[in-house]
Amino acid sequence: MCRWLAYSGSPALLQEALYSPAHSLIDQSLHSRLGAETTNGDGFGIGWYGAGPEPAVFRSVDPAWNDANLRDLSAHVTSPLFFAHIRASSGTAIQRTNCHPFRHGNRLWMHNGLINGFHALKRDLVLDVDPTLYPSIEGQTDSEVLFYLALTLGLEDDPPEAVAGTIGLVEAAGRRRGVDHPFQGTIATTDGERLWIFRYSSEGHSRSLFLTTDIPTLRALYPRMALLETLSDDTRLAVSEPLGDLAGAWNEIPEASYAVIAGGEAETLPFVPPRGSQARRPVHVAGSWPA
Amino acid sequence: MCRWLAYSGSPALLQEALYSPAHSLIDQSLHSRLGAETTNGDGFGIGWYGAGPEPAVFRSVDPAWNDANLRDLSAHVTSPLFFAHIRASSGTAIQRTNCHPFRHGNRLWMHNGLINGFHALKRDLVLDVDPTLYPSIEGQTDSEVLFYLALTLGLEDDPPEAVAGTIGLVEAAGRRRGVDHPFQGTIATTDGERLWIFRYSSEGHSRSLFLTTDIPTLRALYPRMALLETLSDDTRLAVSEPLGDLAGAWNEIPEASYAVIAGGEAETLPFVPPRGSQARRPVHVAGSWPA
Amino acid sequence: MCRWLAYSGSPALLQEALYSPAHSLIDQSLHSRLGAETTNGDGFGIGWYGAGPEPAVFRSVDPAWNDANLRDLSAHVTSPLFFAHIRASSGTAIQRTNCHPFRHGNRLWMHNGLINGFHALKRDLVLDVDPTLYPSIEGQTDSEVLFYLALTLGLEDDPPEAVAGTIGLVEAAGRRRGVDHPFQGTIATTDGERLWIFRYSSEGHSRSLFLTTDIPTLRALYPRMALLETLSDDTRLAVSEPLGDLAGAWNEIPEASYAVIAGGEAETLPFVPPRGSQARRPVHVAGSWPA
Amino acid sequence: MCRWLAYSGSPALLQEALYSPAHSLIDQSLHSRLGAETTNGDGFGIGWYGAGPEPAVFRSVDPAWNDANLRDLSAHVTSPLFFAHIRASSGTAIQRTNCHPFRHGNRLWMHNGLINGFHALKRDLVLDVDPTLYPSIEGQTDSEVLFYLALTLGLEDDPPEAVAGTIGLVEAAGRRRGVDHPFQGTIATTDGERLWIFRYSSEGHSRSLFLTTDIPTLRALYPRMALLETLSDDTRLAVSEPLGDLAGAWNEIPEASYAVIAGGEAETLPFVPPRGSQARRPVHVAGSWPA
Repeated sequence: MCRWLAYSGSPALLQEALYSPAHSLIDQSLHSRLGAETTNGDGFGIGWYGAGPEPAVFRSVDPAWNDANLRDLSAHVTSPLFFAHIRASSGTAIQRTNCHPFRHGNRLWMHNGLINGFHALKRDLVLDVDPTLYPSIEGQTDSEVLFYLALTLGLEDDPPEAVAGTIGLVEAAGRRRGVDHPFQGTIATTDGERLWIFRYSSEGHSRSLFLTTDIPTLRALYPRMALLETLSDDTRLAVSEPLGDLAGAWNEIPEASYAVIAGGEAETLPFVPPRGSQARRPVHVAGSWPA
Repeated sequence: MCRWLAYSGSPALLQEALYSPAHSLIDQSLHSRLGAETTNGDGFGIGWYGAGPEPAVFRSVDPAWNDANLRDLSAHVTSPLFFAHIRASSGTAIQRTNCHPFRHGNRLWMHNGLINGFHALKRDLVLDVDPTLYPSIEGQTDSEVLFYLALTLGLEDDPPEAVAGTIGLVEAAGRRRGVDHPFQGTIATTDGERLWIFRYSSEGHSRSLFLTTDIPTLRALYPRMALLETLSDDTRLAVSEPLGDLAGAWNEIPEASYAVIAGGEAETLPFVPPRGSQARRPVHVAGSWPA
Repeated sequence: MCRWLAYSGSPALLQEALYSPAHSLIDQSLHSRLGAETTNGDGFGIGWYGAGPEPAVFRSVDPAWNDANLRDLSAHVTSPLFFAHIRASSGTAIQRTNCHPFRHGNRLWMHNGLINGFHALKRDLVLDVDPTLYPSIEGQTDSEVLFYLALTLGLEDDPPEAVAGTIGLVEAAGRRRGVDHPFQGTIATTDGERLWIFRYSSEGHSRSLFLTTDIPTLRALYPRMALLETLSDDTRLAVSEPLGDLAGAWNEIPEASYAVIAGGEAETLPFVPPRGSQARRPVHVAGSWPA
Repeated sequence: MCRWLAYSGSPALLQEALYSPAHSLIDQSLHSRLGAETTNGDGFGIGWYGAGPEPAVFRSVDPAWNDANLRDLSAHVTSPLFFAHIRASSGTAIQRTNCHPFRHGNRLWMHNGLINGFHALKRDLVLDVDPTLYPSIEGQTDSEVLFYLALTLGLEDDPPEAVAGTIGLVEAAGRRRGVDHPFQGTIATTDGERLWIFRYSSEGHSRSLFLTTDIPTLRALYPRMALLETLSDDTRLAVSEPLGDLAGAWNEIPEASYAVIAGGEAETLPFVPPRGSQARRPVHVAGSWPA
């Protein structure tokens, strides 16, 4: 169910993160080692920041490993902050609007995992989306509905709280509709400056998530590694699974945690979705809906 | 805003209706004469009945004129009842799930036209769809929402009443949200035996719709036309615009009318969507939605 | 480097061979067990005989496992003789004209394997194609060049001799250009009535190839198996790798052999490409090319 | 038969040339005014120079008007030199490898027009391509063969002479094979610094080609036009047809001419392909081809 990568740091050619590493994201599209499936061939997407506050997004239904445009773009686009995602569909159609990352204004969002019983929960969750945001939903995926719920709950002000509230809503809907363990996965989101990554599942057994060690520490560990000299101090990479085997480089984000990365600093904190009366559904549902 | 064709009668190779005529549907994909646009290049679809009660559907995002698979299939598939549709998007994404015809069980549905202000009306209309049908909506189009509303309102029992009720709901939503003339277009639907076609617009100025004269009458008019000998008495073709210029062959369906075609017989009747208290929203909205 | 299936026998829904078996061809697109790669996701194609002498061909660049059109067609098309192929590109572009099966007149052709050093040999081989056939080559693959060489050398008269001559040309070109072991693979071809399958490699270590046991023998082995009752006596399936584990059902075609299947009878014979002065290049090369 | 645009000058967002003008190239994909067809919907491509000497290329089979990736890229990519092309196929397949611009090393190439009787001439022309270049031909188009012939004849040293020699070969092949008026069209090529554009047809009635007036002259004509202030003195745009109606801005390149544009300076000269013994076929054909 998908693999992803989020890069923040010194401006880099996309191909250096997407194609060059031994176990690069493109390699993972055919040979994922930690994913739910080994093949992630149901489309892909990249999003990057450059000119202007809004990121560019390039998404396609082709498998990442055979897309000539992705290869060419990755060899020519440089960015200090970019997302990349390879998709393994859990059933929804293979179409560009179902590919990650999703964009709204200056925000990007991507997700690995699923909402269990989404068929049963979808209508409840879509109704909780702010009616003014609702018509902007383009695809069919659980991941995009999660994004619009988070936007509804204040993603632009406080991402950790908005994402927690979103998953609280999913879990509340699951209890209402008799779906066990409704949420599973990892999420990455950014405003073009800071990066937030989340790892959580209702059953307490989440998809993997890793964050690289800070560059000064890695340089001290590997004083002769040329690659490290080319990267700025604030460079960080968050990934579904490591791109290589360098000891000390890949740190697993613990179960039920999130991290915020800014200026190369990363802070990891517990992630606890609200429950019960705290998982309140947005009031617009009653308010904005004329009988 | 799309062109379409619905064929019912003696089993025919699809290409005879799609490619052979002077002004065939494929020709209309580049050179529509009566459409809102001359080019209908944003995908296409065909649906046909053969083995089993459920129709086959083949849909693609390529322009119909250059799709090699469509050309090959049309040269090899024979059917007594088939739909074909070429799309000109009014803004939604170019993806297979937005291409017509739409299918549900043994039903096909296609539409030419649009819901004005769909962005403003979409949430209301989607909420009126039966919650058990709701998760089956795959794409983003107004046309598919119309189909699911009609299914909600009894398309499987009484198509004219279900379609009238559907457009009544659209017009009621338009009044509620301040959208003038919310519905525009023509619709075709079938259960694999009978064919229903509709022409209506809220402003009283609808997209064109034509039905061929019955074959016995055409044979009397053109006793030496070989093509007519190959067609069974009950063959009828309904189209957005005529495929040729044969005098007496193409009959315009009047404004605000519908026709039901069965066994070669066609009956044309007035089409009047319900208004006011008659355009009642489905009760499931309150009933099935737990607070 | 690809997997394929060739069916001949009682008219069958394509999905029964493509989707239903435990280890169906669609399953092999994600999880091939005997192929050079586990994933065969670089497009697919099917070809089938029905109305008329020429087969229909449907090919697409999407992975077979996620193509909704393939799923739908397979559930509606019935044929007594069909080919299906899933592609793992050995470097050439992902485009419809590189997908198998290839068609010329009433012939189909598909191939699993490769010409080693094709980059170095391609011009020689393409020059050997009959100049009147040359402009019909549409794609870039070694497989299609093999087909046109075989057509040049009499595929329509004597398939085993034409295919042997073709591989003789490939091996002669390899010797000329210093390429070891130039040919590798299995080939299937048909005229809509008979089926020829080939297994050969220059190094004597070929891709796998299997042919099912005849139906009367299987019925005697498995008197209570309902599926066997639905198949006519002359039904045979040739595959790159078995679709299941039924003991006695799947017979490996030996190294350096070919089989001709007609009316349910299969004859397996040695396959020996000509060498030396016997591997003569077509005379048109000098004759038809004005200085 | 295609439309194209070549931009050279102050670094510009691609969308300013592709989408913003009244009669932009994207508008021409639906509504060409001077082309052989009004619709150019059989794929598109862009090529641009940025990081490194080799240009990036993004090509797709979708119609340019509905491609969401093209729209997004054009809003984020800035370049001082870029090509864009929209395709109307003259019969070859709709596939990425048939889309312009073509790239070889640091060169781009695009073409509007066709080789008449290409089916009859293709083998002769392909044989004239340098055998070491031959395997790099990826698609089926006449346009790509022209590019490889020009590379064979010295495009990297002297573009006008190489292009003249190429068309000389086409015309000689036409005479040999009985094809009248074999070449028709306009061509653009660049090395990332200079730009060459050609207009020629064997019958003396070529597709249109325009070059913008130099910026200082336009500023003198339109002292209050804000757009002109944002463009550097050396900005030039070459197009199949004008993007607007500004008097004095669009200069037709005469029949049988070419222009070389460098540093904002444009020189227009007669274009005369060699004939008779001067249109000599490359010697490699005999030399490099062992009997």
